[in-house]
Amino acid sequence: MDSGQKIEDALAAALALTATNDCPPQLAAALHHAVFPGGQRLRPRLVYAVAQACGTANSPAVAAAAASIELIHCASLVHDDLPCFDDAATRRGRPSVHAAFGQPIAVLAGDTLIVLAFETLGRHLSRYPTRLQKLIGIVGRAAGAPFGICAGQAFESEPEIDLAAYHRAKTGALFAAASAAGAAASGFDAEAWRHLGACVGEAYQIADDIRDAVSTMDEAGKPVGRDAALGRPTAANLGIPEALARLDSLIADATASIPACPGREKLAKAITHQAERFLPPQYGRRAA
Amino acid sequence: MDSGQKIEDALAAALALTATNDCPPQLAAALHHAVFPGGQRLRPRLVYAVAQACGTANSPAVAAAAASIELIHCASLVHDDLPCFDDAATRRGRPSVHAAFGQPIAVLAGDTLIVLAFETLGRHLSRYPTRLQKLIGIVGRAAGAPFGICAGQAFESEPEIDLAAYHRAKTGALFAAASAAGAAASGFDAEAWRHLGACVGEAYQIADDIRDAVSTMDEAGKPVGRDAALGRPTAANLGIPEALARLDSLIADATASIPACPGREKLAKAITHQAERFLPPQYGRRAA
Repeated sequence: MDSGQKIEDALAAALALTATNDCPPQLAAALHHAVFPGGQRLRPRLVYAVAQACGTANSPAVAAAAASIELIHCASLVHDDLPCFDDAATRRGRPSVHAAFGQPIAVLAGDTLIVLAFETLGRHLSRYPTRLQKLIGIVGRAAGAPFGICAGQAFESEPEIDLAAYHRAKTGALFAAASAAGAAASGFDAEAWRHLGACVGEAYQIADDIRDAVSTMDEAGKPVGRDAALGRPTAANLGIPEALARLDSLIADATASIPACPGREKLAKAITHQAERFLPPQYGRRAA
Repeated sequence: MDSGQKIEDALAAALALTATNDCPPQLAAALHHAVFPGGQRLRPRLVYAVAQACGTANSPAVAAAAASIELIHCASLVHDDLPCFDDAATRRGRPSVHAAFGQPIAVLAGDTLIVLAFETLGRHLSRYPTRLQKLIGIVGRAAGAPFGICAGQAFESEPEIDLAAYHRAKTGALFAAASAAGAAASGFDAEAWRHLGACVGEAYQIADDIRDAVSTMDEAGKPVGRDAALGRPTAANLGIPEALARLDSLIADATASIPACPGREKLAKAITHQAERFLPPQYGRRAA
């Protein structure tokens, strides 16, 4: 599962298409700021973990799929941090894109990253046209509406909110897309792999809610307690013990759902291990 | 060139993918508001005009290409109208999306339309995988950076601005993409067709600058005199007679550049006719 360098290389190659000498300098700098240095790169790591289980982790199609998924994630963070949403001045311990470059460039950087996610697929999947079509559908569904990140974020503007649908769209969709994309880029049936990512995504969301509720800002690298401050629905409302039990059950569901493939057992272990790392230190390593 | 109904049908089919019952209602309403009723639909009309000249105007690939191009245009209008850019309260004689639905939904509607532009291509070009890959490149280049709409808009945040590069990216790119997409969706060489759209786009930009300088708000359906008020570079600074001469020369260049195809002459006439309609009434019909 040591796909870290491959992911950074794939993202650098994608950005090299857009942040060129012809690009307005502030936009180019903002694009770089939005993507590097990254967070945990959980979603592209999941793309690679699935591809590795399928035996195709060195394919350029997998690299493009991983970069595409992470670019959508970075775009969503840039726009989520805008004053009209979270109004977050910091992200990953640094100024957010709008804080560093202003709102106009932040809006445009997010837009550009969404476009780049699809361009990256188009550019690197010319040898795999069927996989390209499948991947566009997978990434598009996770990014847009009615089931993707845009829809998830838009639920926050509604007077009533279905917590499950909200999390499924805002966070789960891109994790589900990551596992499906890893399979599709490998020439496997994407749909069979979607449940794995959906479970991992829901588990991550619960862990994030727990972290938001209990962490200090230094640990999280971003403002914490925002969910409560913004009156936002959160799994931590369940109470921490129940949230932790739900997280464990989701990871068990995720590992049980892995379709037949060469690296099934190794993938199950990697997912269990990764889930422990989602949590703040005082709650992690329960399964060890 | 009567492609109007086909364009509306293709856009309605695209929107039906996203503004479903599962979509947060305000986002769904904003998506509809952003796309219907449209303006002149110049860019998708150009897609169809080229496809018609190539003899393929009834292909689903052409419909998807036309819709995709127009969705990118609609997305750019929604984001351009935001308070951090033009702060336009009206668009096409109605409230702009942010004025009607608020900034968060306007940001998300623009994002969703960008995603939908690519999803639409993916969904309708499954029988034409090579064309799909080409069209993703064409639409992506026109929408993002360094050569597309995002880059064009980002030039406005730079201390110095190259007027030609700015217009080429902000307006010309999507017209160039429209003619290239009409050819690519038809299975023709897209690059040979790009110059036609680039010329039409530059002519349209000049006409828009003239209109902005001389029209009343009722005629334009949006606030006018904005370019001067915002200190923005505009071709009207050349003086109206010189701007009109430049427009004529661009249309001559456009029609001369049309590659060999079954409907070459008819297309040349249609483009000349269309260019006259770009202008406010007092300047139109000079070629008649």
